Amino acid sequence: MSMTLYDLCGADQSKRFSPTCWRAKMALSHKGVAFSTVATPFTKIREIDGGNAKTVPYLVDGDARITDSFDIAVYLDKKYPDGPALFDGPGDIATAKFIRAWANTSLNPIIVGLVVKNIHDVLAEPDQKYFRETREKALKARLEDVQTGREEKLEAFTKALTPLRTMLAEQPFIGGNAPRFADYIVFGSLKWLMSFADFDVLKSDDAVLAWFNAIDATYTGGN
Amino acid sequence: MSMTLYDLCGADQSKRFSPTCWRAKMALSHKGVAFSTVATPFTKIREIDGGNAKTVPYLVDGDARITDSFDIAVYLDKKYPDGPALFDGPGDIATAKFIRAWANTSLNPIIVGLVVKNIHDVLAEPDQKYFRETREKALKARLEDVQTGREEKLEAFTKALTPLRTMLAEQPFIGGNAPRFADYIVFGSLKWLMSFADFDVLKSDDAVLAWFNAIDATYTGGN
Repeated sequence: MSMTLYDLCGADQSKRFSPTCWRAKMALSHKGVAFSTVATPFTKIREIDGGNAKTVPYLVDGDARITDSFDIAVYLDKKYPDGPALFDGPGDIATAKFIRAWANTSLNPIIVGLVVKNIHDVLAEPDQKYFRETREKALKARLEDVQTGREEKLEAFTKALTPLRTMLAEQPFIGGNAPRFADYIVFGSLKWLMSFADFDVLKSDDAVLAWFNAIDATYTGGN
Repeated sequence: MSMTLYDLCGADQSKRFSPTCWRAKMALSHKGVAFSTVATPFTKIREIDGGNAKTVPYLVDGDARITDSFDIAVYLDKKYPDGPALFDGPGDIATAKFIRAWANTSLNPIIVGLVVKNIHDVLAEPDQKYFRETREKALKARLEDVQTGREEKLEAFTKALTPLRTMLAEQPFIGGNAPRFADYIVFGSLKWLMSFADFDVLKSDDAVLAWFNAIDATYTGGN
């Protein structure tokens, strides 16, 4: 039976942008398992699966329910040990948690500053209200004010990617010769930004852009 | 037969501080193999092993010669597959290269700014000359000028450690429940700084300090 992934969407249900949902979708795609996605706006998350979900991504696989993209990846490797691995083992899973902390603390806050108002603008009206209230409270500023000073933030973003760019000089992926879950963690953050950026996020000769495009091309999508 | 590691030293041969030598020594200690170190000043590196070494750490194990701390760790896991693992497998080795790139680009430049003159001051005279010439050329500034503005740099250092600190909220080591080579990579950078800092690098309640001390306590030393 095909797995079902609840996936965040905008007013246009084909607009999918959540960084953590992308991490989960890339993990599903990597394992080559059949899955379908259910477009889910922010204010409908609490209605998923009889109210069992608090966040998306939320994976339903028969009787199993897994939320959190990282846990989904660990689940997939455990369920399909013979498929293409997302991790090498427990130490590698732990090390990927460092990568997640790096992406979440070094990249995501800059991305929020670049596109938080764009995210708001693609949401349906009730979701816009929810998003503005929760985000402005967390950010302690109006969305419009958060998203100012793009040039400086882009420079900071380019600089924040230095560890990845430096590593790419010696191997094509964080996972080595092929992407693994550690790559998808960082990819999710960039895909989120790329979903909204109507400006060049990375220079055309940046190795990070080639890395991003190579991973993006491997996504097989749901069914 | 015991392995021999050539290890950078100051004028006082007991002063050992190289971040990459510490990475290698922690890897040797982790594997529980017998090893001895040879105190090697900067200007004597070219005399090691009949001129075969260009850098330290440089490991001599019977007929094998391995330079570069990362390669030493990979070698040790290959030679002693049944001992405590430094990596889970090829994907984990690759992911550790991201950690190395992170430490080398996000931490080490700040550390240089904090203690480069202190490093110079512990070297023997010919090494001081070599160190000043090569470093001032690379840094395009006098050592004395590089090492200014400590408070701002310490703040930047604390901030640069955010990914590690964030991860430590959910697990005690980058390797999970026990340190692995990814931890030793970052530890090497901090040990280097700690070898010279006559000031508090980290607040006493910083989880990074507890992590550092826990790893530091595991070092068994050479023999």
